[in-house]
Amino acid sequence: MINEKAFRQLSYGLSIVTSRLMVDGQEAFNGQVANAIFQVSSKPPVIAASINKDNLTHKYINDSRLFNITVLTENIDMEKIGLFGYKSGHEVNKFENRNDPMGENGIPLVGEGDDVSALFECRVISSIDVHTHTVFMGEVTRAAHFDQAPMTYAHFHKVKGMKSPKNAPTYIDDSEPVIEKGESEGYVCDVCGFEYNASGNSNIAWNDLPHDWICPVCGAERDAFSLQ
Amino acid sequence: MINEKAFRQLSYGLSIVTSRLMVDGQEAFNGQVANAIFQVSSKPPVIAASINKDNLTHKYINDSRLFNITVLTENIDMEKIGLFGYKSGHEVNKFENRNDPMGENGIPLVGEGDDVSALFECRVISSIDVHTHTVFMGEVTRAAHFDQAPMTYAHFHKVKGMKSPKNAPTYIDDSEPVIEKGESEGYVCDVCGFEYNASGNSNIAWNDLPHDWICPVCGAERDAFSLQ
Repeated sequence: MINEKAFRQLSYGLSIVTSRLMVDGQEAFNGQVANAIFQVSSKPPVIAASINKDNLTHKYINDSRLFNITVLTENIDMEKIGLFGYKSGHEVNKFENRNDPMGENGIPLVGEGDDVSALFECRVISSIDVHTHTVFMGEVTRAAHFDQAPMTYAHFHKVKGMKSPKNAPTYIDDSEPVIEKGESEGYVCDVCGFEYNASGNSNIAWNDLPHDWICPVCGAERDAFSLQ
Repeated sequence: MINEKAFRQLSYGLSIVTSRLMVDGQEAFNGQVANAIFQVSSKPPVIAASINKDNLTHKYINDSRLFNITVLTENIDMEKIGLFGYKSGHEVNKFENRNDPMGENGIPLVGEGDDVSALFECRVISSIDVHTHTVFMGEVTRAAHFDQAPMTYAHFHKVKGMKSPKNAPTYIDDSEPVIEKGESEGYVCDVCGFEYNASGNSNIAWNDLPHDWICPVCGAERDAFSLQ
């Protein structure tokens, strides 16, 4: 018997993985939130990252054979999570209007402030196909450390109240929702799990929000919210 | 530039990975502490585990093509960590004198009490060679969930004050020790990092310990301890 809840007991951090595609001599960048990342060897340093084949970042890594990792802290701006975790690069250009630092390998990183715990620049040395995902092995060509504790995936779920994005390896489609419900009644975004609670998020009651109000995390419209 | 401290910002849990070897028709079992474990795909469920080629468990997994994972909680008995994390199966039979539950696949698991957060039984479907380590992809044939939070690797280092075992992917050989030193003076085991402190661990002063006293975690002799 397979109890799917068991998979939630594996511990992860939370990172943004970025990469590049060349189209007609022009560079395009994309990035996505990822949790399935671990160090494989230390001499030379190699990190493994599991990426869903349907994600645009997968295509970009296959093209450039390069990827960078930005390890996030608990100070992460939820808008950044919304953009990189719940929007698809197939639909939006995530790096438009952003001013992110560029890695030495020509792949951007996502921020360098108090929401970053470490940065890695990696060059793909091999990969392995596993059903819906590819696990890329990246030899680390640059690693930077910031003296700020990383956010754990458990924190992301419990404190921030977020669901796994649909293409995450840890996604469970969801007779049993992953989201941890609070004590108080509120509206929850069916797309990303963000909980709107008049006492918690703002002093504005749900019915008083403007009609064009959108989810601050994933940008879903009001119709995407359900009373929890 | 590669700052090795950056690798410590990757988040992990802590598990014991077990496997089997057949020798002249007899079963032998071994297991080791592992942190580099993540879920790769959910349909079918596949977990990746990175194992050092020098470890006996690596040989056993290559032979049986099976491995099991016991995900540990903070209630872990430090003797279990000592046995599975700091002793080599090349030197001791780790399952001698133990009474661990047997998995449905014929590979033992390590405990089912309040020190276990989840159990997985896995069948190797593929693997990839990465320098010192092999990353095994295991399709999950059984998964059990226990309603107890997993221990994070950060907790293991900070609260339990432990070093990475020498063959861990996260091992750093160590002009800058990984061990977090406490406020009070004490003796620290050079092998596993266990801190002996008369006020913390017992009421017996270091000099009053019997001469045959050994490290309660890894079994090292008193000579292996240094004043911190």
